[in-house]
Amino acid sequence: MLDSLPKDKSLAANGCEDKTWKVVASSAAKNCKNYIRDIVDNLALEPNRDKAVIALSLGDPTVYGNLKPSPETVQAILEAVQGGVCNGYGPCVGTDGARKAVANYLSFDGVNFEAKDVILCSGCSSSLDLCVTVLADPNKGHNIIIPKPGFPIYRTLAESLGVEVKTYNLLPEEGWNIDLLHLEAQIDDNTAAIVVNNPSNPCGSVFDESHLKDILEIASKHKIPIIADEIYERLVFPETRFVSAASIDADVPILICGGLAKRFLVPGWRMGWIVIHDPVGAFDPDIRKGLASLSQKTIGSNSLAQGALPAILKLTPQSFYDDLVNILYDNAKLTFEALSNIAGLVPYMPEGTMYMMVKIELEHFPEFHSGLDFMQRLMEEESVFCLPGECFGISEFMRLVITIPSELIQEACNRMSEFCGRYYT
Amino acid sequence: MLDSLPKDKSLAANGCEDKTWKVVASSAAKNCKNYIRDIVDNLALEPNRDKAVIALSLGDPTVYGNLKPSPETVQAILEAVQGGVCNGYGPCVGTDGARKAVANYLSFDGVNFEAKDVILCSGCSSSLDLCVTVLADPNKGHNIIIPKPGFPIYRTLAESLGVEVKTYNLLPEEGWNIDLLHLEAQIDDNTAAIVVNNPSNPCGSVFDESHLKDILEIASKHKIPIIADEIYERLVFPETRFVSAASIDADVPILICGGLAKRFLVPGWRMGWIVIHDPVGAFDPDIRKGLASLSQKTIGSNSLAQGALPAILKLTPQSFYDDLVNILYDNAKLTFEALSNIAGLVPYMPEGTMYMMVKIELEHFPEFHSGLDFMQRLMEEESVFCLPGECFGISEFMRLVITIPSELIQEACNRMSEFCGRYYT
Repeated sequence: MLDSLPKDKSLAANGCEDKTWKVVASSAAKNCKNYIRDIVDNLALEPNRDKAVIALSLGDPTVYGNLKPSPETVQAILEAVQGGVCNGYGPCVGTDGARKAVANYLSFDGVNFEAKDVILCSGCSSSLDLCVTVLADPNKGHNIIIPKPGFPIYRTLAESLGVEVKTYNLLPEEGWNIDLLHLEAQIDDNTAAIVVNNPSNPCGSVFDESHLKDILEIASKHKIPIIADEIYERLVFPETRFVSAASIDADVPILICGGLAKRFLVPGWRMGWIVIHDPVGAFDPDIRKGLASLSQKTIGSNSLAQGALPAILKLTPQSFYDDLVNILYDNAKLTFEALSNIAGLVPYMPEGTMYMMVKIELEHFPEFHSGLDFMQRLMEEESVFCLPGECFGISEFMRLVITIPSELIQEACNRMSEFCGRYYT
Repeated sequence: MLDSLPKDKSLAANGCEDKTWKVVASSAAKNCKNYIRDIVDNLALEPNRDKAVIALSLGDPTVYGNLKPSPETVQAILEAVQGGVCNGYGPCVGTDGARKAVANYLSFDGVNFEAKDVILCSGCSSSLDLCVTVLADPNKGHNIIIPKPGFPIYRTLAESLGVEVKTYNLLPEEGWNIDLLHLEAQIDDNTAAIVVNNPSNPCGSVFDESHLKDILEIASKHKIPIIADEIYERLVFPETRFVSAASIDADVPILICGGLAKRFLVPGWRMGWIVIHDPVGAFDPDIRKGLASLSQKTIGSNSLAQGALPAILKLTPQSFYDDLVNILYDNAKLTFEALSNIAGLVPYMPEGTMYMMVKIELEHFPEFHSGLDFMQRLMEEESVFCLPGECFGISEFMRLVITIPSELIQEACNRMSEFCGRYYT
């Protein structure tokens, strides 16, 4: 169907008047898939009416109301509204003040960014879209390499552009580190970028400095730029240190994507950014100019959020970040301990983010012929919904969010325990 | 240069280690041009230091602070912030409440839209981007037809996608109506959409019902859907009526683009929309589904603006709209009268929007070999800056904004009068 004509030509032979209306969507639209929805919609997800649904599926920390933005964040946007000077168009790449604020905020780790290195976007999804679009050219047969398991947006964005997608494996038994040999084997002459997502959604893993060095060495050897999705930057548990790919001493040019969505708990504000890290000038001027050009398509992000950004990034106290991390860490431990006691499930303790991956030992659940089947029945019987690993390109796993109130996590774990107890062999 | 490789292959023959870093931007980025900037940056724009610059160039009504959003608009966004429930992700196409509000707001003219017909976007530019992307397929050699003169964003968006652009003429001597014969002559088997911008930027013209019927008849005959850029809807002067393309009785499927930018004076908020008008079901399900899919790329618009949208659209009083129109109308009359008295300039009285087109009779200014030259010298000597018609695809014209304070308009006109007086022959 992708090759069909935009209008039904078969009826048009006798003249214009005989044409019928039929408008076909472009390949860019048809290839812009929602992999999560495609999988979830194919499940018959009917909850048990006697039990309230517990959604461990939504990567939105605001859903249950237990996690709120800091008072400083709220105050900053109120002042941006009340000041009355943040209603107009800014530059497409963002206002100088907001770009400078992001540059300062991200210069925590030995790298000194400047305002000119920052491009503000309408959320981190837009940031990723611009990065893939500027680096990968479908007219040249380019491909990008993305993690597996990984968040499906990378595939969605690339495929909509007509860019081929290859994947490299993450190794659950090695803390979800990258299978470096596998990564290197995926690179070919048409590889335009490697996407590195650290900390990882869905794995909750955090790469250490040594692993990042190994990744950048491969990128350097083959001269492939990196798109570093660091939207969960510094959202790591105590005793884990977040290291940005930009802070590694290497010659690799990197586009770092981030935003306010996760650490500041305002995903709906659509405030994302790209930060250009370019130690050898490989992005200069072509990619810098290209990103600025592409930012015209949306004319940047919301002006109120831009007006508030300097105050948000400067005034949010360390205690806010710490409190959020501690809540997530406590929830992670609670979930991990509860699930560790359930025969047939193997939870993987995250080191950060808002997620936990759990392996389903299907060999012990002969009743279910797949992880999807397991998850559908868990919803039907216990009204607990987790995202199947298939949404992230891996089977026999499920991803749980750890952002919801702890009593609901406990209740969900109890129900999973009963459910598994009924079917474990 | 567009065909060069992404990395410098010439040095790679002896092995990976010898590669040098060179990252080339994609054709999507290179073809995403800013036509206004490209033209303006090539002018040597040095203002006269003895005179304060008057910018009649910026299509942002908020620049001089004389036009402010309504108190209802400000109150609505404050309440969205204070309510604390508008920080999370909404559906990519927008929240139900906000979509319903837009459907109601636009059902003023006999067409009853429903929430399902509305897709919220990050500003009207994003709306246009989605419309062009869903309808026009570069892999099929599609083209779109846009107005000339016209706002350059249509060309920017299409060319970035690799979609060919054709233009149809607007006729200044016929109130900038479309040259219908010329429009029809542009249509071919690969035409995916006709862009109709009404009211028009840069012309300030407003199509009447009869002209819209003629346009839709051509579209119907050739079965070409319309992208109706109606961002200036109802921003028309007294005695002029705005008629939406959707209100015309015809079988033509139309994607209507609009938003809060102009009539509500908050362009920076990036709240745009697409409304699907599909009297014969030509867009169903392919284009509806395609637009929803493409909305994933940015995950919709700012959640606070979405939360505020129902109150903004419902509570803004008619007097606010009327006051804005009256100010613009007064400014338009002031400008028109002042410029009518300047030999060598021919102003075209707008019927709406925030702009006025002015013809430069170059035959009377032998000192200047082009309109660009005229404009550059006007800036150098009088510190008055207007956008050259070349930014909109037409020469020997300039576009003035009529949003700035009337005393500045008067001053700018005085300076233009002196300038023209010096050079008129």
